[in-house]
Amino acid sequence: MNIPSNHPRAKSLYIRELLVTGFRNGLVAPEGLIAHGRGEAFDYLLGEHTTKAARDAANAASSMLLLSKYPVISVNGNVTALCAKGIIELSHVTGAAIEVNLFYRTTEREMAIEKELKKNKAKTILGIGSEASMRIPELQSERRRVDPNGIYKADTLLVPLEDGDRAEALVNMGKTVITIDLNPLSRTAKVAHITIVDNIIRAIPEMIVAAKQLKEKNASVMKRIVEEFDNKANLAKSLNIIRGDI
Amino acid sequence: MNIPSNHPRAKSLYIRELLVTGFRNGLVAPEGLIAHGRGEAFDYLLGEHTTKAARDAANAASSMLLLSKYPVISVNGNVTALCAKGIIELSHVTGAAIEVNLFYRTTEREMAIEKELKKNKAKTILGIGSEASMRIPELQSERRRVDPNGIYKADTLLVPLEDGDRAEALVNMGKTVITIDLNPLSRTAKVAHITIVDNIIRAIPEMIVAAKQLKEKNASVMKRIVEEFDNKANLAKSLNIIRGDI
Repeated sequence: MNIPSNHPRAKSLYIRELLVTGFRNGLVAPEGLIAHGRGEAFDYLLGEHTTKAARDAANAASSMLLLSKYPVISVNGNVTALCAKGIIELSHVTGAAIEVNLFYRTTEREMAIEKELKKNKAKTILGIGSEASMRIPELQSERRRVDPNGIYKADTLLVPLEDGDRAEALVNMGKTVITIDLNPLSRTAKVAHITIVDNIIRAIPEMIVAAKQLKEKNASVMKRIVEEFDNKANLAKSLNIIRGDI
Repeated sequence: MNIPSNHPRAKSLYIRELLVTGFRNGLVAPEGLIAHGRGEAFDYLLGEHTTKAARDAANAASSMLLLSKYPVISVNGNVTALCAKGIIELSHVTGAAIEVNLFYRTTEREMAIEKELKKNKAKTILGIGSEASMRIPELQSERRRVDPNGIYKADTLLVPLEDGDRAEALVNMGKTVITIDLNPLSRTAKVAHITIVDNIIRAIPEMIVAAKQLKEKNASVMKRIVEEFDNKANLAKSLNIIRGDI
């Protein structure tokens, strides 16, 4: 696709192309394209840059992943299309496992996503096919099917671009939930313990940088960062930025 | 697609289905689905209804079209999928020509759009294939290719769901530009002479009703409506509504 590089919205159009390519390669559902558009609108209102609030949340999120015993990153088609490489690097840096978990679940999409992640040098991908043999209580959608060696036994989950229903069910299971969500008003943003209000394409590199720096420090520093993080206050900051921009 | 009529978001889901059907029929580009999702977010913030500000803008827009010597309506895949019939009725009521103009241009999509419009009883459709032989200065994208008998010679253009680059280039060509855009902050919304901040699915019927009533009045009434319309003040009203909702 030919996007003129001098187009003032070239970056946003380029990200959009990553999604469309993912859609053509069978990673992304048509509904995933519409969902991306909704995110675009909120990113636009945020100013399409990583805010101080998002940076603080990313720092708390990376601390939480590093402090956890069994952290898992849940990926779907949009996440894979936008930042497969970043997710894999983050999993290496934090020791988190990767599990595929889809709202619009088909075997073809699961396999396409697994293939794309492995192409980007992921080692183990959980949650594929019959491996997703456990169920999240309360949930009706296909997202309830999870891997007993992944999301089901995890203490901390990074669930970017998440559905509100599942985020709530995971919190009710006692998991620590971290999300990346451009809409600070969404149910996911509100129920998660740590919400990074940012475009995932910027948030994942931010988390990687933070995790690399945090690893040089001792656990007490990370514990303090997590304890001092107030998700409600952080969401309010993002809302204020949106309000200020409007 | 089965949408329960009592679903709280039934109307929005129904509109979404029009887009997905248009996508399956080759009218809508995958990027068009993303753009629609973006519109959905702004419509949500607006309260998903036609505001007083939008009604005033639609009234000014219909007056402008009726006062013009050679008005043209520019349509793309999303416009066709959402309201082919309405566009054709508006063109009959106002005497405006219809031209197909695509950002993501392919011959197949052009033909599919032409076919859909003709199925809905459109007579002449401009801008198809080699008929789009003129260029809009300044523009890099495929939207620069226009019909010498359509957009190129028009005095007034209705360009709904428009790209900011082209809106600006058209204004610089001396055209009077009317747009329909759910984002009151967009470049298109700001550079256009008349911006209707509303969902196109509601705005086009609103314009048709206004045009039918205006035709009964004399030109001086319409001239006064156009002269008294202040786009900047009107956009500020829509922004205030969004602010109140956030």
